[in-house]
Order: sequence, then C-alpha cells, then structure tokens
Amino acid sequence: MSNSFGKLFRITTFGESHGISIGVVIDGCPAGLEIDEEFIQSDLDRRRPGQSKITTQRKEDDKFKILSGVFQGKSTGAPIALVIENEDQRSKDYSHIAESFRPSHADYTYEMKYGNRDYRGGGRSSARETAARVAGGAVAKLLLKKSGIEIKAFVSQVGEIKAPHYTALDLSKTEENIVRCPDSSTAEKMIALIDEVRLQRDTIGGVVTGVIRNSPVGLGEPVFDKLHASLGHAMLGINAVKGFEYGSGFEGVKLHGSQHNDEFYKDGEKIRTRTNHSGGVQGGISNGEDIYFNVAFKPVATIMQDQQSVDKAGNEVTVSGKGRHDPCVVPRAVPIVEAMAALVMADFLLLGKGSKL
Amino acid sequence: MSNSFGKLFRITTFGESHGISIGVVIDGCPAGLEIDEEFIQSDLDRRRPGQSKITTQRKEDDKFKILSGVFQGKSTGAPIALVIENEDQRSKDYSHIAESFRPSHADYTYEMKYGNRDYRGGGRSSARETAARVAGGAVAKLLLKKSGIEIKAFVSQVGEIKAPHYTALDLSKTEENIVRCPDSSTAEKMIALIDEVRLQRDTIGGVVTGVIRNSPVGLGEPVFDKLHASLGHAMLGINAVKGFEYGSGFEGVKLHGSQHNDEFYKDGEKIRTRTNHSGGVQGGISNGEDIYFNVAFKPVATIMQDQQSVDKAGNEVTVSGKGRHDPCVVPRAVPIVEAMAALVMADFLLLGKGSKL
Amino acid sequence: MSNSFGKLFRITTFGESHGISIGVVIDGCPAGLEIDEEFIQSDLDRRRPGQSKITTQRKEDDKFKILSGVFQGKSTGAPIALVIENEDQRSKDYSHIAESFRPSHADYTYEMKYGNRDYRGGGRSSARETAARVAGGAVAKLLLKKSGIEIKAFVSQVGEIKAPHYTALDLSKTEENIVRCPDSSTAEKMIALIDEVRLQRDTIGGVVTGVIRNSPVGLGEPVFDKLHASLGHAMLGINAVKGFEYGSGFEGVKLHGSQHNDEFYKDGEKIRTRTNHSGGVQGGISNGEDIYFNVAFKPVATIMQDQQSVDKAGNEVTVSGKGRHDPCVVPRAVPIVEAMAALVMADFLLLGKGSKL
Amino acid sequence: MSNSFGKLFRITTFGESHGISIGVVIDGCPAGLEIDEEFIQSDLDRRRPGQSKITTQRKEDDKFKILSGVFQGKSTGAPIALVIENEDQRSKDYSHIAESFRPSHADYTYEMKYGNRDYRGGGRSSARETAARVAGGAVAKLLLKKSGIEIKAFVSQVGEIKAPHYTALDLSKTEENIVRCPDSSTAEKMIALIDEVRLQRDTIGGVVTGVIRNSPVGLGEPVFDKLHASLGHAMLGINAVKGFEYGSGFEGVKLHGSQHNDEFYKDGEKIRTRTNHSGGVQGGISNGEDIYFNVAFKPVATIMQDQQSVDKAGNEVTVSGKGRHDPCVVPRAVPIVEAMAALVMADFLLLGKGSKL
Repeated sequence: MSNSFGKLFRITTFGESHGISIGVVIDGCPAGLEIDEEFIQSDLDRRRPGQSKITTQRKEDDKFKILSGVFQGKSTGAPIALVIENEDQRSKDYSHIAESFRPSHADYTYEMKYGNRDYRGGGRSSARETAARVAGGAVAKLLLKKSGIEIKAFVSQVGEIKAPHYTALDLSKTEENIVRCPDSSTAEKMIALIDEVRLQRDTIGGVVTGVIRNSPVGLGEPVFDKLHASLGHAMLGINAVKGFEYGSGFEGVKLHGSQHNDEFYKDGEKIRTRTNHSGGVQGGISNGEDIYFNVAFKPVATIMQDQQSVDKAGNEVTVSGKGRHDPCVVPRAVPIVEAMAALVMADFLLLGKGSKL
Repeated sequence: MSNSFGKLFRITTFGESHGISIGVVIDGCPAGLEIDEEFIQSDLDRRRPGQSKITTQRKEDDKFKILSGVFQGKSTGAPIALVIENEDQRSKDYSHIAESFRPSHADYTYEMKYGNRDYRGGGRSSARETAARVAGGAVAKLLLKKSGIEIKAFVSQVGEIKAPHYTALDLSKTEENIVRCPDSSTAEKMIALIDEVRLQRDTIGGVVTGVIRNSPVGLGEPVFDKLHASLGHAMLGINAVKGFEYGSGFEGVKLHGSQHNDEFYKDGEKIRTRTNHSGGVQGGISNGEDIYFNVAFKPVATIMQDQQSVDKAGNEVTVSGKGRHDPCVVPRAVPIVEAMAALVMADFLLLGKGSKL
Repeated sequence: MSNSFGKLFRITTFGESHGISIGVVIDGCPAGLEIDEEFIQSDLDRRRPGQSKITTQRKEDDKFKILSGVFQGKSTGAPIALVIENEDQRSKDYSHIAESFRPSHADYTYEMKYGNRDYRGGGRSSARETAARVAGGAVAKLLLKKSGIEIKAFVSQVGEIKAPHYTALDLSKTEENIVRCPDSSTAEKMIALIDEVRLQRDTIGGVVTGVIRNSPVGLGEPVFDKLHASLGHAMLGINAVKGFEYGSGFEGVKLHGSQHNDEFYKDGEKIRTRTNHSGGVQGGISNGEDIYFNVAFKPVATIMQDQQSVDKAGNEVTVSGKGRHDPCVVPRAVPIVEAMAALVMADFLLLGKGSKL
Repeated sequence: MSNSFGKLFRITTFGESHGISIGVVIDGCPAGLEIDEEFIQSDLDRRRPGQSKITTQRKEDDKFKILSGVFQGKSTGAPIALVIENEDQRSKDYSHIAESFRPSHADYTYEMKYGNRDYRGGGRSSARETAARVAGGAVAKLLLKKSGIEIKAFVSQVGEIKAPHYTALDLSKTEENIVRCPDSSTAEKMIALIDEVRLQRDTIGGVVTGVIRNSPVGLGEPVFDKLHASLGHAMLGINAVKGFEYGSGFEGVKLHGSQHNDEFYKDGEKIRTRTNHSGGVQGGISNGEDIYFNVAFKPVATIMQDQQSVDKAGNEVTVSGKGRHDPCVVPRAVPIVEAMAALVMADFLLLGKGSKL
C-alpha cells in the first residue's frame, strides 16, 4: 500500500480513522537532533479537528507519545516512533457506508482492490492519517532549521476568492485568522464563503501555497527525482489534492521564453536571478531563490445532502451525508502541506551529501 | 542522481546530449512479452528532432539497438538494454556555455551541485535523455496492451490557444498534424503561433493532455503512492514541466462538493460514475473511468537572443543564443508524456498483483 | 539505520531495550488474510526471555497489541502495526555501560557512529528488537501457510556438540525440550553444556538450522537477490550471527562436481533431484526441493566476568558483567531464524507474481 | 529480476553470455572522481577467461567502453555506463541445453520461472554477468581509495587444501601465481589439484577470503543492513557461492564468550581491540579493525562427463558436458569478491554521511 515516504529521511505511517491509534515511524533522522516536543504538538494542533467553527467538530486532542528513538531529549539515530490515540471513536451506525459507496470517496476503489474494507470513518483512506505525516514533518522541520531552511504554507484561494501573490504578503500573519490566509481582508471573504457553503450543507475547494526559504543551492536529484517532482509527488499524495504547480506554473505556458527566463546577476557574493519564474528550481535542483508552489484541493466529498449511488450488491441507493466533516479542507491542510514539503527537503538534504567528492 | 524510475517495472537511463550514446535498461519486464521493434521505433520517431519545421533541426535518426533481454523476439525476464547512438555531435564551440550560465537552464545548479559539468549541449540535463524514456515507455505500452490499457496524449494548449476538452475530440487524429492537436482548426492556429514565435527568435510554452483508457479498477497504491501522485511525479520529472493536474484539477477548486462529486450508477454489469471530475482516480486508486491529466510546459529556455547572465568567475556576461532548438517543446513532448504514463501504469499493474489473497 | 526489511512484504521495526515499547509495522500484507493472534503470541512466547533455566531471567510477558490494519479478524491491506510494551525496565545503575565500552558489544561503534547513545540495556542494539521481527514473521508465516509453505528451525549445534543432518530428524519434536534440538539425546548434552558454561559465568555459541518445505518452484530473483542471498542477508542481520551457508555449504567446496551435482529425475509428474546439495536453490531460484541452511551464532558477549576495556574518555577500565543474560543464544534464536526466513519467502512469493505473462 | 545492487552507490547490470554485449550502469558515483581506465581494465583482466591453463579457454578480451558519465577524465555525477562486447559467441549447437536441464545449473528453475529461456551459454545465468560487476566494483574501488580503504581477496582453499590465516600472509603476493593464493607453497598444491581434477574432466570447489583494510569506524547500518549482512548478501549473489562467514565465523561457535570477546585497549590515540574475532564489525558497524570474511564456492556444475537428467518434455535424458569451462572457479572469483565488497563499502561510505548532525 506504500505507506512509506522518503529515501534516507523516511517515514512509515499506520492507523485508521476509528482504530486504536495512528502513528508514524521516522527512520533516518540523524542522531543528535534536539526533539522539541512542544513544537511537534503545536503543528499537530494546527491540523487538529475542532479547532474553529469552519472545521469539522470531531473532537480529538491529538496528543502524541514518543515510543522510541529519543534519549535525553535528542534523537539517537534509531527509528523515532510516535503514536496518537484515537479518542472520539463514536460507536456510530456505519451501515450506510459499509454496504454502499459514497460518491467521490475511496469506498468503491478500496472495496475492489482489497475486498475487505474497514469502513468505519473511511478507515485508512481517512484524512486522519495525515496527522501522522504532520508529526513526521515536524521532526523534519527541526532538522531543516539547523540548516536555516524555513517552510511556510498558507491558504491562497477558496472557491474563486484568491489572495495576492505570496511575494506581496507577510507570511508571519498566516496564523492570525482561522482560514490561514495572511491577507486579512481576503481571509474575511474566505471565511464568509466557507460559512455560507457550510450552511448550504455543501463544501468548497481551495488552494494552499507553499514557500521554502533559504534552501541551499544544489538540493534535488535531476532526471527522475527532480526537486519539484518529489514535491509534486508529496503533495499529490495528500487526500483531496487535484493539482500541483511551481514557479510560473500553468500560467507560465502563456509566456515567451524571453519573458519567462530568469536572468542571473551578482548580488554581493551571491549569484541570484532577477525574476523567479523558475520557482527556485532549475534542472530539478534548487538555485537558492524561494521555492514556491500551489496545491489544489477539491471540495470535500462528504456533503450533508442525499446523493445517488450503488451498493455492494449492485443496487442503486441513496446515500445521505452524516457525521462531522469539514466544509473546506484547506485551513487544516496548511500544516500538512508544510509537513510534506519538509519531508522532501530533509530527504534531499541528506541525499545531497554525496553529490561530489 | 536518481536515474531510475519505477519499483517493479523499473527503468534506468544513461547518457548525455553529446556523448557516445544514450540508453535505457528496463528491469522487471515479465518474460514472454513480444517485443515489437517497429512499434518502439515509431514512438522514437515521434520524439525525434528534425521531424517538422516547428521542431529543432538537429539531425538524429534515433535508431535503437537491443543489447540484451530479448530472445527469439520475446522478453526473457532479463534486463532489456537499449542504446541509441548520438550521431549529430557537432564539434561546436561550447565556450559560451562552458564558462557561463544560460538563464533558466541547469548550467548553474549542476555546476554548484557537481562541480564538474559536461557542458556540451547541456550534457545530462539535455532533453535528449527523454529518448531513453520513450524507448522504455514503448516496452511498457506493449505490456499494457496485453491488458487492454491504452495511453494517448496530445497538445491541448500552446500559449493562450486552447483545444476543446478531450471528451469532445477524436484522439485518433492526433498524428494528423505536426503540432499533435487532434482538433485541426486549433492545430492550425497553434502552428501559426509557433512559427511566429520562432521567427521572433523566441519560444512559447504549452500543455499536453494525457488520457488513459480501459484501466482496470484497482491500480494505484493509496497513501503516498496514489495513482495520480506517481503520475504527477513522472510528469514533473520531464524537462521543462511546471505543473500537473488531473480530473477537475485547478478549476475544480471553484466547485461545490455537490457539483464536483461523481455519482455512481449501474451500467449493465459495471459500476460507473455519471461525471468524471475524479479523473478516473478515487482514493488514489483507478475506478475504471478514463484517467486524464494536464501537463504544463514552460517556454524553452534557449532563445536566439542576447541575455544577461553571470559566468563561473562571477563576472556579468551576455549569453547569446546558438544552436538548433525547439521554439515550442510540446509537439515532441507528446510521446514523452505517453511513455512516462505507460511506465507508471505498468508498474502499478505489477504492484497490484499482491493486493489481496 | 535501515530499520526496514523486504520489498513488497516489508516490515519496519522500532524500539529500544528499555524504552516504552517496541514494535513493528508490516506493510504489503495482502488483504483478506486471517490474522491468528494466538499463533502470533505462541511464536513470541518461543522467543520470550525467562522461558527456561537456560535463558535469561529477564521477565517480559511479550504480550502484543495490534494497533491497525486488521478488521473483523482479517488484514485489510493497510499497514499492520503491532506493539509490545517493555515491562521489566529496572531502574538499574547503567553507569558501567554509559561511559565504558563492553567488549564485543555495539557500545563503541554506536558511540562513534551516532555520538548519542541510549545505553540502557544496549538500547537499539539489544536483541530485544528481534521480538518485533518474530511478530512480523508470524504474520508472514500465516501468509505462507496459504501456499502450503512450511518453515522450521532447530538447534543443530552448541559448542562442539552437533545434531545429525536434518534429514535424519523428526522436526516436529523440536519444541519437546528447552534447547530446541529435535534429537533428544543430543539435546540433553547441549543442555548440560549450556548449564555448565552458565555456572562458569561464561557463554557459548551454536548453530541454528532452518528448513523450508513445500516451496513452489520459481521463488527468488536471480542476479543480486538470489533466494539464498536474501536469506543470508536476513540471517546475518540477526544479532550475534557470524555465518550463513545453505545446501552443501562450506563442506561442499571439498567435493568434485561429479559428486556435488544433483541429477534430475521424474517422480510421477514432478521433476525432482536425487540429491540436494543445492539446498533447494539453483541459479538463485527455488527448485521445489527442501531449502535448508545453517546460521552460526557467536557466544553471547555479555559474560559475568571482569574484562579489560576503554571508556569514552579513553581511560583503560575494567568492565564487570551485570544483569540477566543468556548463556547461549540459540534456543531463543530458533523462532527468530524462522521469522526472518518467513519474511524472505513472503516477499519472494509476492515478487514472483510478475515474472512472466 | 533484481539486476540492481546498492542504495546510493548503485549498479545495474545487463547482458547475456551470448548476446551482443554485457554492461553496467553505475548510478550515484560522486562527481569529481578521476576514472582510471587502466585500473578498471586491469581488474577486468584478472577476471577474464583464458588467462591461464587452469581457467576456461573461452576467448574474450573483455575490453570495455564508457558510454556516459565521464567528462575530461572525471565522473560528472551522471550515470556511468560501461559496456563490454561479447566476442567469442560461437555458433554452437545448443540443442543439448535448449531442451534439457543440466544438473545443478539454472536451466530448470529459469524455465519454470520465466517460461522463455535464452539457453545460449546459460544466458543471463552465466557467470559472464560478473564482468559487469567487476567493472562497477573497480569504480567503487577508485572511490574508496580516496578514503584510504583497501580491499584485497585471495584464494584460501581449494578442495581440502587450505592456506594459513590471512594475518600470516603477505597479500601483495596474491597475483604472483595463477591460482591467486599468496602462499606460494600452498598455491603450488592448489594448482596441481585443479590440474588433476581438470584431467579427470571434473571440477572442484574452493574458498575466497576477502580483507578490507583501513575502513573508518562507523560504516554499516545496524538492524537489517548490518555491514556483514550486506557483505553476505553481496557475496551470496555471486554465482556458485554456498556460504559466507566473517571474523570467527562457523568456528567461533565453539568458543566461550571469555575467549571470543575482543577486549579494547588504547593504541596511541586510537581505540583498538587486542583480538579480532569480531572481524572488524561490532553491532553491524565497522570498528576500524580489519574486516575479513570467507566465501565458499561449490565445484562448477559443468563437467565433461555424462549425467542423468530430464528434458522439457519430461523424458529422462543423458546430458553430456560440452564447451569450455573452468575446472575451479575460485582463481577468477577473486576480483569478483573484491568488486562486490567494494560496492558494499562505497554504498555504506555514502550512506554514513547522514548518521549524525
């Protein structure tokens, strides 16, 4: 099922939405890294359900426990296992999911692929699994901090409402509102839209933008594992993601080469580019400029409305929305995007150590 | 440098733009597959330079030779090595590249990462490497054919000119024009635009759309290696790619869940969806509908104009465009997109064999 | 640190000797496999400390808990996480290990490699880690049973005392004595020797023989991952192992080809070999005969005697034996050898599904 | 078929005994390494057939050609592809192999696993494939030399004739005789025995001992990829190998812990061990002492005698020995053992760079 991600800095996640617990094993973290548990918890809290009126009301504290790999506050080089218990596993009636396939969910494809499906809350296909990624990514962030690399994500679009380009924003303001858009006036509109959609018992999509600053030059493995290809893989592996673009992205196809090319210049001792259509990556390798990218999230599939579907026996049925769900996934997706980006960068940081003599 | 792609059906490519030859080793191809050499050559011919007035005029026959793994016309299970000799390696003056960094090329980042750079024609960073992928992908296509899976790509956008949605097109017409857009009137406009840009000594970007038909239900590994995540990884690893989206993609974020969800219905014995915003993938696993996706290509970085840059010694210099280059990469990118998609699907086809008892 | 083993059927283990718990995540187990918890526990009990007078007296119940991947008694295809709590973590005085390097232990090399060492009970280098392997291997055995494959190991040598060749033994008698040698008279001598060595406050080595029966023809990937090469890798990764041989092994080098070759004959519908110097593997692939191999274990490094050594500061010191340790590791190594063999076979079983069309 | 070996320093080999050529792609070699072609050729010459009267008389020059990855004499970080053409592909009559299974060869198992077999000279199962490993290993040796690591192998046993322990030998004398045993009087006996066996139209086994000197402390990944486990995997993947042991090996099981333990002492500034039963590896990690190991090779399966067997149709047949084969494989196996050891060490050298902050 491919529950591992990364080559040298590698996480393996496990757990289902309504099982005993979810968790992550981090293998390949260099020894001697101070493991700041408060920091890990703060990232988990940003992803946690029930954090605001525009997220699901499921109640999970998401307190984690470290089982291994840390001694006297520091990583030992051994695998770091973290687990998070599932608390709010209501003994609901799941018969509507057990036998029927919710539209645009993983019910049907899991049933066909595995035969045997843990239908409680979506089982393994639930976004609850991403808490394990956030925990793993937080450790990756701690490693990156040592090299000065900083990763920030924010909500740049909800429905048709878009924030300005990241270069015009102060990303330190992202956490100042519940939608996680650093532009307060755009944030207000986004919140209003999400609230409106929620009252309609519906959902809406959005875009999260990620920005990686202070990357050293030289990260990324050209050919198949270009820096942006691995970032794309990481992002597209997050539940509900439909697209990934970096630098000029899909808009860039409209430009001429003479407009799109990033000319080099000398800035003191550093070689820099005047523009950054490249999004900080050239030939699959970081060039020292900001790495930035957009991640598109579809509207959440679970809506509080009746929908037509089919059950396991092949009968046409009506599936009714139940449970506690997010009207829009992007506010809680921000720390997930950051976590996956951190995992990619930590891996390339280690992989890059053997590039040259 | 990560020159391998795939887990079970796995290719490893090698070779530089102006070296002796380029090649690919295909490991994991099941034994007993008829290796149709004409078919492989025909795909290479679609990628070959010099095929039309809107592509580079570099002359390469791109005739391949099989060194191993095939006996009496069939794969034996042993690695299949194919090589393509480089013919048109003109003994050019490369001093302008050797010491200077071309804007938006891989010169600078390779120099910083590896110290030691084969600057002739871009060396390993040249798109010439993709011929090896096309050869490997052609073998993957032969394997997929056995399961009825069909992969088609076409040019859906050049600059601002867009073709209609793929469902409104007859993809069998893709090869009827040199830009590889199955809609002839759009194709004419695209060709005219590329020609215009070429005369301006400039370049332009575009989009290639890929469509995978007749995929069985159940391919793709949920969590980190979702079907679309691996497709995205594959596409973003192609030179000049800036973005990937599948199904509703970036536009889908604007929709409500009630609009975006694909309701299930019974079509004879098959379970199908009425719409296909999911792009044939739910929960990271194929659902039997068409898998479709867009791949954004930036304008080619090499333009026939002077540009400001910096050389290795740190001096500001002017780099002049030289050589034979494509004014727009997308017509030749079509078989590359198909090849990478085929490699992903072949790998998942083999990986899927152990999903359930 | 490479805490994962296997390609398709893949385990990742974590945990230290005196941490909160140890565990294993099993990724790639096909869905639909009945998970027999009693069977898993019975294998853990065979490895458990304190099981007899000739093993360490550390008290661990080694009761496991399944955190994920099993629903209604069957595997779902999702990762199966099992944890075992550490109970008997005495708050000992570890100062003798914290600052000094025990001879022939991992203290010195861990200190040099990682800088930061969890010295309590050996931390990650403790054989306690193998409980996680036994749990993972038990699940692999359940999968293999479905294909009729049976894995048995037993103690064939302690010090200089050797059991007869496995073909002369009834392997169903292995569990009838505490040393796990199916030949009762040899077993008695082995037990006496271990007891004698224990009273001398010393330790002794031994050999475990593994036998795999009813393997289908065709398992193993020739070239680098030959069946026996992967078995060897698996066995040499167990703590204290010094050697691996299969079939005729080191003795076989003395034979002539005309003596060593296994002639084929027809046995009803089956093709078999008259002798089995090949140990069931030819060209790295199983041929349907019994696969058998020997695994050499050194004497346990912890002895209840004073030894000369060096401390972290570089001073020469005397290290005194403390704690509860095995005088001979092989009786408890039997289920570990079986577990690792099962993991190898399960992986090859899945890998083999794509060998031919 | 698993034709790749290594994680960061990774080779992929291809080619059959009687195909067009064999070759290797080396991925992950750091940039800037001087590629000494004479050195690579000299290692190939040591493995080459026809080099002396006690080896096969097949004539292959084994001249290699570098296709990629080297520029101006140095590695560029790009994959290094080397090919060796097959010259002496006699158009023999292979009907005796095509339809029948040679005893103790890979004919039967390949036929069953793949259905489709290149029977000419054994195809992919031929030891000719090891020339590609030697070429790859020679590049690894060049990398290791930069760190001072030296790898030497020699023939330590033929049949029952054994050389003294390596510590009593001058390994610089290994190449002074055709059997590659540095002890000249033992070498003479070995040569006489091989010659005698050859005249009997038979074959004989032997042992190759490998010694790795000047390894830094800290190489090897504990748990599953212990240094000796990866060495064992590498060696057991060589054709005809039946066993692997390191340090005290199988003999060590007879010792008491008090005899076997290697006490530490201070040697100037270095921490060393007084004895080296550990074979330079403790806890799976190098401790700076000599790493040494034995590799057992069975007698070559091809003998110039009639043997009973079975053909594809299931008929009992007589297989007659034909062709040009080695009476004993160990003299030519020496450079192969060295090559595989070098690949393991180069990989661990790169992997070890990220062990600690």
